[in-house]
Amino acid sequence: MSQILTFLGKGGTGRSTLAVAAARAAAQQGRRVLLVGHQPGSGLEMLLGGIPLSGEPVTIAANLSVVQLRTTQLLEQHWTAAKELEAQYVRTPFFREIYGQELGVLPGMDQALALEALRRYDASGQYDCILYDGPGDLTTLRAFGIPEVASWYWRRASKAFLGSDLAKTLRPFVEPLLRSVSTVEFSSLEDLSNRLGGMTNIFEEGRQAIADPRRVLAHLVTTPDPMAVQTARYLWGSAQMVGLTVGGLWVMPLVPGEVSAADFSPLPVRILPRRQGSDWSALEEAVGGIFAVPQVPPPVAIDEGARTVKLFIPGFSKAQIELSQSGPELTITAGDQRRNLFLPPSLAGRQVTGAKFQEPFLVITFG
Amino acid sequence: MSQILTFLGKGGTGRSTLAVAAARAAAQQGRRVLLVGHQPGSGLEMLLGGIPLSGEPVTIAANLSVVQLRTTQLLEQHWTAAKELEAQYVRTPFFREIYGQELGVLPGMDQALALEALRRYDASGQYDCILYDGPGDLTTLRAFGIPEVASWYWRRASKAFLGSDLAKTLRPFVEPLLRSVSTVEFSSLEDLSNRLGGMTNIFEEGRQAIADPRRVLAHLVTTPDPMAVQTARYLWGSAQMVGLTVGGLWVMPLVPGEVSAADFSPLPVRILPRRQGSDWSALEEAVGGIFAVPQVPPPVAIDEGARTVKLFIPGFSKAQIELSQSGPELTITAGDQRRNLFLPPSLAGRQVTGAKFQEPFLVITFG
Repeated sequence: MSQILTFLGKGGTGRSTLAVAAARAAAQQGRRVLLVGHQPGSGLEMLLGGIPLSGEPVTIAANLSVVQLRTTQLLEQHWTAAKELEAQYVRTPFFREIYGQELGVLPGMDQALALEALRRYDASGQYDCILYDGPGDLTTLRAFGIPEVASWYWRRASKAFLGSDLAKTLRPFVEPLLRSVSTVEFSSLEDLSNRLGGMTNIFEEGRQAIADPRRVLAHLVTTPDPMAVQTARYLWGSAQMVGLTVGGLWVMPLVPGEVSAADFSPLPVRILPRRQGSDWSALEEAVGGIFAVPQVPPPVAIDEGARTVKLFIPGFSKAQIELSQSGPELTITAGDQRRNLFLPPSLAGRQVTGAKFQEPFLVITFG
Repeated sequence: MSQILTFLGKGGTGRSTLAVAAARAAAQQGRRVLLVGHQPGSGLEMLLGGIPLSGEPVTIAANLSVVQLRTTQLLEQHWTAAKELEAQYVRTPFFREIYGQELGVLPGMDQALALEALRRYDASGQYDCILYDGPGDLTTLRAFGIPEVASWYWRRASKAFLGSDLAKTLRPFVEPLLRSVSTVEFSSLEDLSNRLGGMTNIFEEGRQAIADPRRVLAHLVTTPDPMAVQTARYLWGSAQMVGLTVGGLWVMPLVPGEVSAADFSPLPVRILPRRQGSDWSALEEAVGGIFAVPQVPPPVAIDEGARTVKLFIPGFSKAQIELSQSGPELTITAGDQRRNLFLPPSLAGRQVTGAKFQEPFLVITFG
C-alpha cells in the first residue's frame, strides 16, 4: 500500500517544485517513489532537468520513477478492457466496431482515468509513496470526489428507479430482453441492479482510502500574494468536502510579503527556501516532514451519544454554507461542492434541531 | 451575437488580470460586456475591488456585468429542465423522485455546464462581448472541444450500433417497449436514432461558432519564465486541436527575462505594463487591440484541387503528432488531444500518400 500525496494551490505558486522536492527527499531516504505528472505542457520535464517523460513509469534516479499521465493513452487501454468485459457478458458485442485509437477526450475523462491510474499504481505494491502533481485546483478535488459522488448517484438513481412506475412498465420486457442479450442469467430487475451495484464496491474502497490520511494526503502551496493565499484557503475547505485531509501549508517566497499562520490554524505553516539553480538540497531538507500524518481535525466527526455531527469546513464563511436534510441523508453545499452524508441509524430518524457555525466547525445537533 | 474571448496560459501569469482589463476597456468603448468567472476561489472578486460575485450577472459599472459560474447552481437549473423534458416524453417519469438540490458534482460537469452557460449568454443578445475567465489550461480546451467530440461519439456509436448484431437482437423489443414508455410514436430503432440525432444539431452549431474567430477567440498569456512560455506554446497548439483560433500572446512582466517573438510567429506578441495598485488605465490602453480578428492560419485548411489537408499545429514537434486514416476520417493525435476530421467526398475515398511536418504545419497529401 502506498502513501499518496497531492498538492493544492493557485497556479504558479510552486506546486510542481514542491512535488519534485518531496519525491527526491523520499527517494533519498530509501522509499520507492513514483512521481505522477498530470498537467501536460506544465514544464515538469524542465523541472526534472529535461528528462523526456512517458506514459509508462521511467526510473530517473535510485528509488525514483516518473510517469506523465496521458489521457488519450489511458483511454485506449481502458477501451480494450471494456471490450473484453463486453465480449464476456454480451452475446452480440458491438464495442469491437469502435477502436481505442480513434476516441477523443471529453471533459471528466482526465480526472476519472487519473484516479484509476493512481489506484492501479497503489495496488501494484511497487511504490511506497506516490506524488500526484495534477491541476491542483478544484479539478483535482473533483477527481478525488468521484468515489463518493458516483456511488451516491448510483444508489440514489437505482433506488428511485426500482420504486418507480417506469420500472413497473419496463419489468415485463427486462427478463426476455436480458436473456437474448446477455451471457449471464438475471432473474429480475433487482437482480441486475444488485449485480451492477456490486461493481460499485470499488468506489467504496476508494472513498475509504481517500478519507484515510495515512493513505491519501493533500498539502497546500501558496506564495505571500493575497490572491494565492485566498485560493489556498478556498481549496483547504474544498478538500474537506471530498473527505480529503490537508496536512500543511507550504509558503514559496516568490514575491515579498508574509502569510498569517492564524489564517491556517491548526495547520503547520512552513516557509520554503528558494531553489538555487539545479541545487535542490535546501528544498529537499525543508520538505522532510511532508509525509508525516498530521494532527488535524477530521472532515466529519459523528458523536452518536451527543447526537451531533461536527464538520470541519475551514476557509468558508457561514454565508457560503448550506445545509439540508432528507431522510437518512444530510446534504452540505459549500463553495462549489456538495456532499451527501449518510447518517448512522441512531441519527437517521431524527430531525436536525440546530446548526451552529463556529469557524472552522459546523456543529449539527439532532433532536 | 456576442464575441467570446478566453485566456490560456500557466496559472499565475495574469490571465484574470488580462480578462478584467479587456472587460473594462471594452465597456468604456460602449460595448455591452459580460465577464464570466469560472475559477472558484481564484480571487477574481479581489481583482474587481472586493465586489461580491454571484451566480447571476451583476452590473458593476456602465456596460459591465460580472457573473461567477457555480456548477452546483447550474446543475439544479438543468435538472429542472431535464425533469420537464422527461415529463413531456415519458409516460411514467421517475426523475421527479430526485431533487436538484441534492446532486453532487462529477468531473466534466463543470466544463459542460460552463459551455452551455456561455451559449445561453451568447444567445441572449444582451452582450456584445463575453470574456470567459476559466481554468485557462487543457480543462478549458476540453470544454470547447465538447461539441466536436461529443457529436463524433454520437455519430460513431449510433452507426456502429445500428449495423450491429446487438441491434438485430434488440429490434423486436424496441417498438413495444417504446410504445409503453414514451408519449411519442417511434416506428423503428432508426427513427429513434434519427430523432435523438436531431438533438445533436446544437453541437454542430457550437462547433461552427468555436471555429469562427469572429465569434470565439483565445489569447495566450505568459510571463518571461521559461516554464510559463513552454505552457503557452503547448496550449497554442492544443487550441488548434479543438478548432479554436488563438489571436495573440500577451506577456506580463512579472519576472525578469524576455520572450522570443519568433517562438510564437505569426502571432502578435505584446508586452503589458504592470498594474499600479487600483489604476487600470495603462493596462486598459494596452489591451485595446484584443478584440480584433487576427490574421493567423486556420487550424485546418482543405484544398480539394491540390488534394491536401493542411493542419496548423504550432508548439508541437513531429514526434508528438500521430496520424491515422480510417474510411472518410482522418485521426490526428497531438499533445493529449485527439481530433477526428471528416474528409470531403472528393478526398474521402482516397488514401493518404504523404504527410510532411514543416513546423508549424502538417501537410497531408492524398493519392
